[in-house]
Amino acid sequence: MVEEIIEKAIQDVYPDDFAWCFGCGRLNKDGHHLRTGWQGDKTVTIFKPESKYMGIPGFIYGGLIASLMDCHGTGSASLALHRKNGNEIGDGSVPPRFVTASLNVGFLKPTPQNVPLRAIGTVEEIHPKRWKVHTELFADDLLCARGVVELVVMPKTFIQEKG
Amino acid sequence: MVEEIIEKAIQDVYPDDFAWCFGCGRLNKDGHHLRTGWQGDKTVTIFKPESKYMGIPGFIYGGLIASLMDCHGTGSASLALHRKNGNEIGDGSVPPRFVTASLNVGFLKPTPQNVPLRAIGTVEEIHPKRWKVHTELFADDLLCARGVVELVVMPKTFIQEKG
Repeated sequence: MVEEIIEKAIQDVYPDDFAWCFGCGRLNKDGHHLRTGWQGDKTVTIFKPESKYMGIPGFIYGGLIASLMDCHGTGSASLALHRKNGNEIGDGSVPPRFVTASLNVGFLKPTPQNVPLRAIGTVEEIHPKRWKVHTELFADDLLCARGVVELVVMPKTFIQEKG
Repeated sequence: MVEEIIEKAIQDVYPDDFAWCFGCGRLNKDGHHLRTGWQGDKTVTIFKPESKYMGIPGFIYGGLIASLMDCHGTGSASLALHRKNGNEIGDGSVPPRFVTASLNVGFLKPTPQNVPLRAIGTVEEIHPKRWKVHTELFADDLLCARGVVELVVMPKTFIQEKG
């Protein structure tokens, strides 16, 4: 399999204040640094977890898969609304940030360790401020999990509650 | 709030081969070491995440909450089937292990950092080999998330696929 990379990721241009997420924040030195970009009209996140993230030896633990679905979801919704607003990564505009309303993961097969995981997303607009991302998770070419994530534009109250 | 601890956790008596999960394996030195026990007829997991597990500063990231729901779910189902089989933690018997079929998390409020999280579970038997765990996640006394996890007794094929 050709090694794939995401050239332009939405997480690369999140505002600094919102770039600390353990899953996808570029400023969180301990985190996964998940990065999500476009491939045609699909959104893609590629990630190869460290060996410690096992469930039973040889397989990824469920929490990591859920984390990947979640941050891939917020990134995908951000990509989609950013594009809808007439912007693209790298044009200097600040993308919208989303928070997760609900996360559903169906585990179809044990997800093997030591291969790249690819989350492939289809983004659906429910409402201008509420989006849904349907994701298939592959380990190499093996479909291992499906996710449906509902996301809402980060409300101002969320930010105020920081204080 | 009185500091609570789980005295007897099901994860303390998982067989060594199945005690490596990043979420709940006692032998995974880097993991969360989630521990789940009975409180009356409810199952409880208590956990205070390290500060790196933030979503935005001040709040826990969604992946950690999903991971907690997941491992709390497998632990709760194991507790319930173990008890149904006439066994209790500490009697020398080996508890059943479960794998997650599906995980649903509803995020109700941002979950604050630096307070203990308590997952409180209600276990429902769907079929002798398929169980459902309904969980409420509290940060101190604030209900922050709800989870529904479906679990199945770990199939022999799962173990064989390790090879």
